[in-house]
Amino acid sequence: MTNNTISVTETVITPQAMLEHWQGHRRLTRRTIEAFPEDKLFGYSVGGMRSFSELITEITDIASNGILGIVTGKWKRVEELDHYGPTAAPATKAAILEHWDEITADIDTLWPQIPAERFQEVDKAFGRYEGIISDLLLYFIDNEIHHRGQGYVYLRTLGIEPPAFWNRD
Amino acid sequence: MTNNTISVTETVITPQAMLEHWQGHRRLTRRTIEAFPEDKLFGYSVGGMRSFSELITEITDIASNGILGIVTGKWKRVEELDHYGPTAAPATKAAILEHWDEITADIDTLWPQIPAERFQEVDKAFGRYEGIISDLLLYFIDNEIHHRGQGYVYLRTLGIEPPAFWNRD
Repeated sequence: MTNNTISVTETVITPQAMLEHWQGHRRLTRRTIEAFPEDKLFGYSVGGMRSFSELITEITDIASNGILGIVTGKWKRVEELDHYGPTAAPATKAAILEHWDEITADIDTLWPQIPAERFQEVDKAFGRYEGIISDLLLYFIDNEIHHRGQGYVYLRTLGIEPPAFWNRD
Repeated sequence: MTNNTISVTETVITPQAMLEHWQGHRRLTRRTIEAFPEDKLFGYSVGGMRSFSELITEITDIASNGILGIVTGKWKRVEELDHYGPTAAPATKAAILEHWDEITADIDTLWPQIPAERFQEVDKAFGRYEGIISDLLLYFIDNEIHHRGQGYVYLRTLGIEPPAFWNRD
């Protein structure tokens, strides 16, 4: 074994498994968006928090610009992201879902272009968040889970059953 | 390169990074428990959901029995977990935090006993959830993030600022 190989037993997650993990969560988030009545996506929240559409804008911002940053090494600055400035976010549920699906396709297209050693490289996401790429990626996914869980509470207060958490199909 | 080695470039997350990822999230969840006033941990929820202490019982159940199952291959059945039956969960905030810290220590002690190839083995967590160990582990962590995010909403409705999501120290 040379220095640039390790035993397979040191691997917890492969790139392919990580892509599937992310897209599985994104399928669940898509179903959560679908579960919201159109008006409640935009004009409703709990505890003075952002509406679910605003949380989704943060998630789509991070996903679409995050995959680009990972592949190219070039990052939009935090201040340039939609959810920090005057938002150009989609204004209807259908448009949000369409945008969502574009990002899903982009991620599938761009992922194989990530040089495998890239996952262990240190980079500074959005000009601010420094870490190795695999940790940044987990952060993107964790942030989505976190905000989607909040959407579940919004749905519960509306008397709507959220999608099954365990289902990632 | 032989069949039982792969290039380091195929690794996204190492066992050590996965442990740190989990414990970082557990530190954040601990701070979220601490942020709740004692009475609101037990008697309060939003949208007819479970109280945060009940969500925490689910999380501690999964963590404490999950690490044992991963290490030993022996799993409590779902029906035997505290949060499914008459709960023996701690009844005060101090006792919850003490139990939390015991599990933190247990995970640190048991983790190095996981045979490295174990992460790719198929098992059936709690007698019900089948998958490779690394996916089961991610599921445990994702479930914690999901419910903790719901606790953030509870805190917001109480006018309490939740801990910073990005801080895993």
